[in-house]
Amino acid sequence: MKALVLQKGRICLESAYPEPVPLAGEGVIKVRLAGICSTDLELLAGYMEFSGVPGHEFVGTVESSGRPELLGKRVVGEINCACGVCSECTAGRSTHCPKRTVLGILRRDGALAEKLSLPEKNLHAVPDAISDEEAVFVEPVAAALEILEQVHVRPTQTVYVIGDGKLGLIASQVLRLTGCRLTSIGKHPRKLNLLQTQGMRTARLDQAPSERADIVVECTGNRSGFELARSLVRPRGVLVLKSTFKEEGGIETTPLVIEEITIVGSRCGPFPPAISLLEQKLIDVKSLITAAFPLSRGLQAFEKASEPESLKVLLRME
Amino acid sequence: MKALVLQKGRICLESAYPEPVPLAGEGVIKVRLAGICSTDLELLAGYMEFSGVPGHEFVGTVESSGRPELLGKRVVGEINCACGVCSECTAGRSTHCPKRTVLGILRRDGALAEKLSLPEKNLHAVPDAISDEEAVFVEPVAAALEILEQVHVRPTQTVYVIGDGKLGLIASQVLRLTGCRLTSIGKHPRKLNLLQTQGMRTARLDQAPSERADIVVECTGNRSGFELARSLVRPRGVLVLKSTFKEEGGIETTPLVIEEITIVGSRCGPFPPAISLLEQKLIDVKSLITAAFPLSRGLQAFEKASEPESLKVLLRME
Repeated sequence: MKALVLQKGRICLESAYPEPVPLAGEGVIKVRLAGICSTDLELLAGYMEFSGVPGHEFVGTVESSGRPELLGKRVVGEINCACGVCSECTAGRSTHCPKRTVLGILRRDGALAEKLSLPEKNLHAVPDAISDEEAVFVEPVAAALEILEQVHVRPTQTVYVIGDGKLGLIASQVLRLTGCRLTSIGKHPRKLNLLQTQGMRTARLDQAPSERADIVVECTGNRSGFELARSLVRPRGVLVLKSTFKEEGGIETTPLVIEEITIVGSRCGPFPPAISLLEQKLIDVKSLITAAFPLSRGLQAFEKASEPESLKVLLRME
Repeated sequence: MKALVLQKGRICLESAYPEPVPLAGEGVIKVRLAGICSTDLELLAGYMEFSGVPGHEFVGTVESSGRPELLGKRVVGEINCACGVCSECTAGRSTHCPKRTVLGILRRDGALAEKLSLPEKNLHAVPDAISDEEAVFVEPVAAALEILEQVHVRPTQTVYVIGDGKLGLIASQVLRLTGCRLTSIGKHPRKLNLLQTQGMRTARLDQAPSERADIVVECTGNRSGFELARSLVRPRGVLVLKSTFKEEGGIETTPLVIEEITIVGSRCGPFPPAISLLEQKLIDVKSLITAAFPLSRGLQAFEKASEPESLKVLLRME
């Protein structure tokens, strides 16, 4: 099959990559549409030392499965494939299973190919009201919802989202549903404008509010964004780390103790509420699509995705 | 009056230090007994660049006050003196008032002197059932209770306290009251033994459990203790920072995101429940007293307090 393949910091388009061989309990999915995530760009830069097919945002059609009711169904899939029996799994934290593989990220080929395999328990049927273009956003919307799984965001609280990339724009839209006093802070007027047109409050990085917030969500993935986020959390407030940064030096601990700050690392989230919000059109994801390419032009798609002004770049497989 | 005075990394005993001049709403307290805290040793080493009288753990008698009902009363006192009108104060976070002074720590002379002044609203009467030797521990017991103000510790959870200094031993005793599965981890057999004799589970640092805990409380104040604490928190678990460390390098953020760890900085806590627990003899603090010196031998008291095997060293003022 055709696939984009990442190895040793290079990405190539292969035309005869081996098709996925499903394990017991897994189905094979013919990918319809997939998204390129910032994580994919980081994998290309060496993150996780991943080699294989990248990609973990997709919608596809079940081609083979031991569960006949799934055959032909349009599905999205949770990306963490857990053992199901270890103490993390049995404690309900299967996304933290130490034996897990992760679609397109950790020891499992991903979605930037004609086909992929995933455990059937990871698959979720996509309602007709959600188009393919929307369905590829289920995974990042779920990741944004993880914030609400972890932190109680009250309607009366002041919340800032720092970063106007894909994750920041989606996290902002999820957080505004709580009714909180939200300001989204970023550096690209054109990206912030996507929120403004929905009536949301935004600010430029260099004109960030001086009032400190109850909750700040860091979505920039760089150190200066983190520093701004940290400075804007009030005493006893919460700083949610939604992205990582590679730059040298970690978080100083003394100010965290003196100001009694809570820091919450946040990763993958729940699919069913993400599907529900998209079905009800409570999150606008279509405006985040910068371009779509066929798989055969996958290398150009990666180039486009890495441009600073780009948001979501999609790959069509058929 | 006689006072221990800290200036530019030196501590001296002065015999004619000026008596405290109470501001409006403040009372003057004749100190009966005071404790030397690890923070006082850090202040001597340069922390907070404090100069003046150190000391923030005390019990005393109200000598003058605008509130007649307080006169002659045996009291302990909350150490943060807040403005009462700023947004932090009116939001109920007066310990984080940006204009605050802090007894013996920040722009306010402390308790290692014959007298001190504090706002009357900071004072709490000490019940007869609490001796002076116990009352000096109200402040550190309150600081340990702050953990329970910030984090919901469930009876079914596994909790580790790292560090067998004064704070670690008190935090352990407060945490065991939740019914949680607690192990206190430290390096001094003699100190850990104080918990063992109360039927508590302990472990040596070099024989720490391999099972990761739901909640880990860091009380060592050094980097290796922090690293151990971090390594023992399970995915989605909570690491409470009860002490700070000066060593270079902060916390790496990427593992926090991947494992969705929550870090909670924790400082001063509520006095009334601390008084209540001590009155009910649910916390044993007397066994933590290493020695007591008269104020006139205050320099020796500081030397004693800085010995590795020491726990609480007290100063008698009368």
